Order: sequence, then structure tokens, then C-alpha cells
Amino acid sequence: MSDDLPSIRLKPKMDPRRIRFGYPWVYDNELVMDRRTKAIAPGSLAVLEDAGREPMALVAVTPGSRIAGRVLDAPGVTALDQGWFRARLARALALRERLFDQPFYRLVHAEADGFPGVIIDRFGDACVIQPNAAWAETHLEVLVAALVEVTGVTCVLKSAGGRARVLEGLDDKDAVLVGTAPGAPVPVQMNGATYMADLTGGQKTGLFYDQRPNHAFAARLAQGARVLDVFSHVGGFGLACLAGGATSALAVDGSDPALSLARDGAEAAGLSDRFETRKGDAFDVLTELGEAGERFDVVICDPPAFAPSKKALDAGLRAYERVARLAAPLVAEGGYLGLCSCSHAADLEKFRTACIRGIGRGLHGTGRGSQLIHTGYAGPDHPMHPQLAESGYLKALFFRL
Amino acid sequence: MSDDLPSIRLKPKMDPRRIRFGYPWVYDNELVMDRRTKAIAPGSLAVLEDAGREPMALVAVTPGSRIAGRVLDAPGVTALDQGWFRARLARALALRERLFDQPFYRLVHAEADGFPGVIIDRFGDACVIQPNAAWAETHLEVLVAALVEVTGVTCVLKSAGGRARVLEGLDDKDAVLVGTAPGAPVPVQMNGATYMADLTGGQKTGLFYDQRPNHAFAARLAQGARVLDVFSHVGGFGLACLAGGATSALAVDGSDPALSLARDGAEAAGLSDRFETRKGDAFDVLTELGEAGERFDVVICDPPAFAPSKKALDAGLRAYERVARLAAPLVAEGGYLGLCSCSHAADLEKFRTACIRGIGRGLHGTGRGSQLIHTGYAGPDHPMHPQLAESGYLKALFFRL
Repeated sequence: MSDDLPSIRLKPKMDPRRIRFGYPWVYDNELVMDRRTKAIAPGSLAVLEDAGREPMALVAVTPGSRIAGRVLDAPGVTALDQGWFRARLARALALRERLFDQPFYRLVHAEADGFPGVIIDRFGDACVIQPNAAWAETHLEVLVAALVEVTGVTCVLKSAGGRARVLEGLDDKDAVLVGTAPGAPVPVQMNGATYMADLTGGQKTGLFYDQRPNHAFAARLAQGARVLDVFSHVGGFGLACLAGGATSALAVDGSDPALSLARDGAEAAGLSDRFETRKGDAFDVLTELGEAGERFDVVICDPPAFAPSKKALDAGLRAYERVARLAAPLVAEGGYLGLCSCSHAADLEKFRTACIRGIGRGLHGTGRGSQLIHTGYAGPDHPMHPQLAESGYLKALFFRL
Repeated sequence: MSDDLPSIRLKPKMDPRRIRFGYPWVYDNELVMDRRTKAIAPGSLAVLEDAGREPMALVAVTPGSRIAGRVLDAPGVTALDQGWFRARLARALALRERLFDQPFYRLVHAEADGFPGVIIDRFGDACVIQPNAAWAETHLEVLVAALVEVTGVTCVLKSAGGRARVLEGLDDKDAVLVGTAPGAPVPVQMNGATYMADLTGGQKTGLFYDQRPNHAFAARLAQGARVLDVFSHVGGFGLACLAGGATSALAVDGSDPALSLARDGAEAAGLSDRFETRKGDAFDVLTELGEAGERFDVVICDPPAFAPSKKALDAGLRAYERVARLAAPLVAEGGYLGLCSCSHAADLEKFRTACIRGIGRGLHGTGRGSQLIHTGYAGPDHPMHPQLAESGYLKALFFRL
């Protein structure tokens, strides 16, 4: 069976059990990196063997990457044909169809869906794929054919902006793989709100589905509320709160295109009269609102990843603390503060501690305390691989002040 | 101001900052335990002073308890009158009224709601109070008067079965404090299902509200599913899944009264024809179902606290692993497994690791993997005190197998 495929081998000292127990990655320093292995073309399939040459798994190899091998299947599988992709995509689709009424969701969330390094977001009849590992690039044609077959979408776009692609030696060229790119932003319904997803010009795939359950929680708090949505992107929290009955929402972001899409979303849902946007640096705007004595019933801060890596952790936690410190005084007595982190490096406990410290400093001398009423993660269309469960990057904490 | 109240003092070596930053407990070994302090009657109010005799807080004292002092308010407050209780209850009520359409919820969740050691659950016109700290027992009359004033309930029951009461030197005598105890179980609507809450004879307060959002998540998975609800109590997950469209639900529990209430709930909602119960030891029943080759689309296991203390942690984690190992093979291909823990001592990571290991062992040799699709906690009517946030006891993990 392995006649057709090259093999790569674990070093004699490497314990093979981690892989046998389902860990999906083989690091470069765990492999015998001989000339033959180094010469394997990135994105090729290979058979991973233990030190005794016993086949362990079918893997995709990127010899120059820290993650040199990605487990794809049992060692008996020797090729990835359209049927292989069809079966995995059908399994991924079944989960989403159970969870959502409408075809707007993350369809494939990398390792957890059996597609290491691959993200696919679905927007109705269109999919945006991020092939962030070399194997997906080399198998892109058959993957996309299976995607069209399983979902029936008429448009598939490739988004090549992911940072991981650099580590895999891949280019950053976006492309239209199937059909025609939509000429205008696509309206997406979530939690009763309308969001405009710009599939070709936006940040990453144009809209983030991961905050959906946290948007929904914020909306439960929003009846009759004045809402401040800081780092709003296309209006995620603010528009959901308006749909939930907020009397007003102010969205703050540094990006004009994002705010423009947010306004279009408000317009599409007939909520424009209650929606305002303000372009600016979030820290500056938070400071100005505080100096002006402004108060909101619900304040949400969903900043970009301040701690994307371990090296950036300390500075990142200080930034999260600062957000909490500046935002807390803007919350009216008995109101709510939602603080989010999408930093891999800041785990829940560290992030929570930074937030609690920031709130404490922000409310110092007021006699006000806080309650933590909800901890949310990315939605269930962003499943986690059991062996990578610590990688739950998205955290949303809701406090009552 | 402290003329009327006794004072207690931090030891000279104790750093007062933890209390100043909002930590709500003073441990016995942090206090100068002189004869005067030891003589304070349990449940009395006192002024907590730092080592320099500077007043820090109004505290409730139970000299013989490990938690010898519980912070109640600023040091300027010298008595807890009905107005004091009214203000805190009104604040607690405002959160619940924002979250829920119907008056069925945990109204007071101890420290996080400013009532150290006190639990109050509301069932429409009735409240069940657990005064699990001595100060609540000594102030019970005024607390209950305020409760009636703020909520308008016509019945208040005292539940004295909490284990914490023993540590506080309190008796275990239940009582009817206001009105008349309901003569029959009270129907409670949650997630479209009907639950029968036995306010006088049931476990603790007769119905647990904490799993409400996790019931809701399970119900999202349940359309057309065969559901197995192990450690079902009064049918929490099973009845929610039936309301969510499950074709059948089997509830397994060791308690006949709990299963009888579950059947009454199914009957009340017109779901009896799809609902079955089975009395027995959960481990035995899981084993028998496995041997019989039974398969379910959704399996939920919500056991009692296997690791209630640090001492019980290792054995508790082994029990959680065993539950996962026995339950996983009962899940049909592509189906869902929900595993819950209400153990304080088992934190999320430890519990998750035990579950993942158990699933791995349960599915060994089948070639099946798993995805972690959702992590849930207790609902937002169970807020956490920011300084006790690690005490999030309830965890619910949903896997797809």
C-alpha cells in the first residue's frame, strides 16, 4: 500500500502514542529529517511510520514547516480522491444543517473537521475557502469539485491572506475558483440582524461567524438599552442588539469600509434611525466618551487579537486590561459590559484576570462591584479537535456592573 | 460608627489588599483570634479592621467556621435593615427580569449577588431560600420580609439541607416561612418543556435551573433523534430534547421520585408517548445498553458531583472518564454526546481531559474520532463573583462522535 507514497519516520526516541491517541500534528523535530524527507515536495502525501517502520497514518508533508506532518487518515488510505473529500464535507455539512436553518456558517473548521489547515465559510450559494496548508493547495481542484458536489454552491472564492500560508511557502493570491464573485456585499441574517459580507474586499472572509452565540447573548440584554459597540467591524454586536430591541447603538471602528458595511446592514434591516457609527482609534474614543461623561446600558469591546503569540502575551494582557479600565466607567449603574478576546495565547483565566483587574481599576472609588454572568466561546460551527482543545481562541465575558 | 458593632482584626502579617480588591471572604487563620473574637455569636455583624485598626468592611462573623468573615458592605454600614435587603434583592431581580420572560429562575446566587452563602430560587409565586451562612439565619426575618416586598411572592420555603450549614453550626430543619407550601409539584416551563418541581420533597430546591442553557443546546441537536438522558433527575435534558423534536427519550436515574416527576412533566407537555424511564444504577444501565448494542443519536450524562472536594479529585476524574467510556459507544455514528460535571474540584481542563480520554477508550478500534462543539456553563442567573470566578462549578461539554 505504501509503495506509491514516500514514507517519513518518527525519531527512535519519539513516543508514538501521542499520534496513536489522535494528535493531528507531527513537528519537524520529531521526524528523521534525512535528505529524502527534506526533498518531499510541500503538500505531498506520505505514510508516517514509527521508529520500527510500522505505518501509523497517512499524512500531508510540508518539510520546511514547523508542523511538518498533518495527519489525514489511517495508513491504509493512499490517495485523496473526490470521494474522500465528499465524505468529509458531507459530515461537516450534516453538523451545520442540524445547527442552522439557513446556509450561512463556517462549513469547515480545519483539524476538527478533518481538514488540517483548511477553513471554508459558506454564504448561501457562495463559499470562501482558505487553504492555509500546502496539502490543501495541491489538492485544491478535487476539494473544490467535492465542495460544489456536496453543497451545490455556485461560487467558490479562494482567500489567500492567511498568515499561516507564509509558513507553508504559499502565495497570497486570492482567486475566483468557481462561478463569478458577487458584485456586491452579500446580506447575511444572524440573530435577527442583517450583516453585509464583503466576500472579496473584507477582512479575511468578510464576516466572522464565530461570535454568533455571543451576539445572541448581548441581544438578550439589549431591550430598551443604549449600546456601545467598540471595535465593531461590520457591526456584529451593535446590529444584533438593535434587533434585540436596543434604543440606540453606536459602533466604533478604525475602518471606514467596515463601518460602511455596518451602516448598510442597519439600512437593510430598517434600523438606520437607531444606529450611529464613529470612525476612530478605539482607545481614543473610549477615553473621549469617558471624559464627556457618556453612559451606555450595554458596552461591548471585541478587539483584534492583542496577544496573537506567547511573545506578545504580556503586552496583550495589558491592552485587554486597558480596554476594560476605559470601558467600565462608560457602563450605567446595573448595566452590562462584554469583553472579548480572540487571542490564542491568552487563555480564559489570564484574559478573565486582566478584565477583572481592569474593571476594578476603572470603577475604583465608585463603590460599584461586578458580576460575571456569562462566558461564551466561538459557536458550534467552529468545533475543536479534542487534542487541540486548549486552542479555543475566542472568549467572550459578560459582566454586570 | 463602630461603637455598636464588635470589631475583628486582620493579623499584622496579612496583606489587606485582597479584601480591598473585593475578595469576599476572610479566613479564620487571617484574623486575630482572641477571646473576644471567638466569643462573637455566629451570624453577628462586625467591623473588619486591618492590622492598623483602620475599618475595612462590614462583615458577618462565624468564628468557628473556616470562612470566619463574609464581607457584606462598606464599613460605614452598621445594620442590615429591610431597606438594605430590598436594594440588593431589587438589583438581583432586575438581572433576572432582563434575562427571562417568566418568573422561574435562581433569584439570588450567593456572593455574586451580594448575599454571601444565600441561595434563593424562584418558582412563580413561591421562593425557596437556602440560608447556608449563619448571618442569613440571624437576619432571616427581615430578609424574607424584603423578599416578599420586592418580588410579591406569596410563599417562601426554607430549605436547610445544604451541607454548608453544618460548617456554620446551623440545623437542617426545613420550614414554611410565608404562606402555605404547595400541595403538589409546581410546573415550570423551560426551553419549551415542562418540568415538575417538588419544592418540599425534592433534591435541594426541587429543580436545578443551572443547566437551562445546556438543555437548550442539547435541544438544538435533537430534531428526529433518539435521546438517552443518563442521571436524568426530573428529566432535564430528555424533556428539553423531546420539546426540541426528538422522536424518543429514555431517562435513566436511580431515584424513583425523580423519574416519577419526569413522567409527570412529559405528561403535562403531551410528550408521554415518546418518553420512557428506567430506574437503575447509571453505570449498570450504560453497560447493559452497550452489551445490547443499543444506539442513540444524542446521549447526555449529567452525573452528581463525582469530585466535590480536592481529596476526591482523582477518583472523581476516573468516574467521569468511565462515564465517557461507557457512553461513547452508545452514540450512533455522527451523533452527539453531552458530558456534564458539577464538581467544584474538577476544573474545565481536567474534566475535559478525562472526557476526551474516556471517549478515546470507548471508541478504541472503531476508527471514529470526535469533535468538541460546545462548552457551556451554568446559566446567567448563576452569576459569579469576580474574585471567585474559578468557582464555576458547572461544565457541560458537547461532542460529536
